[in-house]
Amino acid sequence: MNEPVGIALLGSGVVGRGVLAILSEQQDLLERRTGLRFEVCHVVCRDVNKNADLAKTYNLHTDTTRAVSDPRVKIVVEVMGGLGAESPINEAIRSGKHIVTANKALLAARGNHLFPLAKKHGVSIGFEASCAGGIPIIDALTRGLLSNRIDSLTGIINGTCNYILTQMTEKGQTYSQALSEAQKLGYAEADPTLDVNGRDSAQKLAILASLAFNCQVNERDIHITGIDTLQADDIRFAEELGYAIKLLGIAERVGDSLSLRVHPTLVHHGELLADVNGAFNAISLYGHAIGHQFFYGRGAGQMPTASAVVADILGVALGIIPHTFARLNIYPGQLEPARVLPFEQLRSRYYLRVSAADVPGVFADITAALGKHHISLSGVSQKESEEDVSVVPVVVVTHRATEGDIQAALKEIDALATIKSPTVCLRIVDVPKEFA
Amino acid sequence: MNEPVGIALLGSGVVGRGVLAILSEQQDLLERRTGLRFEVCHVVCRDVNKNADLAKTYNLHTDTTRAVSDPRVKIVVEVMGGLGAESPINEAIRSGKHIVTANKALLAARGNHLFPLAKKHGVSIGFEASCAGGIPIIDALTRGLLSNRIDSLTGIINGTCNYILTQMTEKGQTYSQALSEAQKLGYAEADPTLDVNGRDSAQKLAILASLAFNCQVNERDIHITGIDTLQADDIRFAEELGYAIKLLGIAERVGDSLSLRVHPTLVHHGELLADVNGAFNAISLYGHAIGHQFFYGRGAGQMPTASAVVADILGVALGIIPHTFARLNIYPGQLEPARVLPFEQLRSRYYLRVSAADVPGVFADITAALGKHHISLSGVSQKESEEDVSVVPVVVVTHRATEGDIQAALKEIDALATIKSPTVCLRIVDVPKEFA
Repeated sequence: MNEPVGIALLGSGVVGRGVLAILSEQQDLLERRTGLRFEVCHVVCRDVNKNADLAKTYNLHTDTTRAVSDPRVKIVVEVMGGLGAESPINEAIRSGKHIVTANKALLAARGNHLFPLAKKHGVSIGFEASCAGGIPIIDALTRGLLSNRIDSLTGIINGTCNYILTQMTEKGQTYSQALSEAQKLGYAEADPTLDVNGRDSAQKLAILASLAFNCQVNERDIHITGIDTLQADDIRFAEELGYAIKLLGIAERVGDSLSLRVHPTLVHHGELLADVNGAFNAISLYGHAIGHQFFYGRGAGQMPTASAVVADILGVALGIIPHTFARLNIYPGQLEPARVLPFEQLRSRYYLRVSAADVPGVFADITAALGKHHISLSGVSQKESEEDVSVVPVVVVTHRATEGDIQAALKEIDALATIKSPTVCLRIVDVPKEFA
Repeated sequence: MNEPVGIALLGSGVVGRGVLAILSEQQDLLERRTGLRFEVCHVVCRDVNKNADLAKTYNLHTDTTRAVSDPRVKIVVEVMGGLGAESPINEAIRSGKHIVTANKALLAARGNHLFPLAKKHGVSIGFEASCAGGIPIIDALTRGLLSNRIDSLTGIINGTCNYILTQMTEKGQTYSQALSEAQKLGYAEADPTLDVNGRDSAQKLAILASLAFNCQVNERDIHITGIDTLQADDIRFAEELGYAIKLLGIAERVGDSLSLRVHPTLVHHGELLADVNGAFNAISLYGHAIGHQFFYGRGAGQMPTASAVVADILGVALGIIPHTFARLNIYPGQLEPARVLPFEQLRSRYYLRVSAADVPGVFADITAALGKHHISLSGVSQKESEEDVSVVPVVVVTHRATEGDIQAALKEIDALATIKSPTVCLRIVDVPKEFA
């Protein structure tokens, strides 16, 4: 038996405590599997008094430099979160320590700097926990799927949004009702902005798309619409049409370009993605050789995230992640920028809800505007609004059309005197079909 | 750029040709990602004349020894299949070559010998393609999920059976009709015995369960029932109750023991496994930290299998698989034998179809026999048979009961004069429930 692998844990919050729990409770199992023992040499927190319980077992303090410079420490585990973690990670890399992190915001914003810095210093960054929590998707993209040209990657990668959408769908709640329930249950932060506005999903999509398509994807390359303006009516009408509404992160090859977007999306109930409910995450992938592949699991929460962190600790300690990291050329910072498909060139099917006054001729005006912009319809139906009885919701489903044409047509439609509020425009995802 | 990695390909069938296709067509992509080039130094086949097309591009011959002893060859890729592959693999290992294989029959039967032999000779065995084709489940069990105590692993791991069951369900076909359609479409072999009798699934389950539970699981440890005796009536009655019938491989922790079985199983339509249709495979896992995790993809076929083979070639060439293989203690041949739960101690819910004569008192006799063996019922209904109008099918769904009690009760029931043919007994899977 070799000496234990020294770890410095930066952060003593929910995930950090999950990591400590797995390392101590599963010590025998981990040792049996890997022949390795681990020693948590430092737990760095912001406030020692608030974490007094940890001080009984661990070397608890607030001095990052002392922790990352300790020669016994081989792996620095960063579970503080936020952009403020850059400085300690930088320091750790420069001290020759391997990094394990769950920090998608930092990697999405500063991966271009951190990945090359780690390569330069001969250390690795394990970041399985940064995307989709316990689902080993980084592992799959850097190993099992490496033989495939990936054609599309579509994911439900924010559990908070998926929980809210599930509540709105299953219980008919409004967005605000579902959000406040999610907050009560701890699925949503007190400030849920980054989750519900889609930015958290976009940060994860940037990381995943870089790995899958081997080009540099930044958050600003991604068209982002959140779920915070979604109305219960549209969830209901979509269900009537056979679709669930999910917040999807989508990266797909279109010719030589990459279409990159996060938005609420209609997913047909025949698709596995439509059945992903509650706080679960899922990723649906199409590769040129594997065809369709689908991964499902918990994308957040203490133990699933800690599971991914500890898997990375093992991967680093076993030499697997350092080996992968040193050899593969698929990490941000060493890739060409993505050739991003301009959003107005997107081709999709659309769900439109027009809020029309109940007067003769309004149908004709709407369809004329769509026709003028080459948009053909696959269905139109007049609904009853539960929210406002003075308008008539008209739901239009289009055949494939171009985003630019749709936006031009909507501008004209919304300018009509008979239209009472801006038309709701949602995209319908058509996943590649395969013969089973 | 280093010199190319030399490969000897043993087998020039469907999968072998898929491997050659990926290595040649995706050469640039693979080189960009990994910095590696590959050279197929030998293609070994049984009959050179039948593979004349390959001779234009490759060094095609029938001499295994020449291929595996070539000093340029670093990786021997075995896609011949069958137990006859043991001898060339043995030879390759002794020549210091890494092995990549898709051969589950060989690994299930001889892994105890081959894995330790490879360790002894300082080489590795990549076997992702042996289970569930393109789904990177071996990768997940040896890396991403390594931090979890696995509590259960349940899979649809034979695409042929799943295709047949899907046809029976969706089109109301009989087993023979569905089988012959599967054969026409190439989803089933001319001799489908190993698929439909459940042995192929058991071989894969033995490999997966060994890795997941870190104990030696052999095919003979597994209770096996195939789909070859399944009747269309039961698929229909199960659907009416809200269940799909799937051939599942199940390995689950029960106290200190492992319940190991392959049998047609009723899966509730609320579960993702119930929605796995056609030739697809899927694996549903529960880990102590990750909770529920689900993997879905193509389990067989030329390109999905080749995808896994090439991923392993890359993993070996990058040093990732050799590193994993050398360090982990989770491979067959170095594990304690599984403590197998005796099948009669299994506790499950049951679906029973009793074929009764339409005479007074028969219901009472059946329920009396079940009650005598402590089996309580959650539902009973009398059906109409489409196959035989002279009997009355009585479908009984039980609460959790013990297999031994069920078998004892069925013995008594089937001995009744009013019972016209042996009672059909299927198990209903209850997957662990989690709060989402």
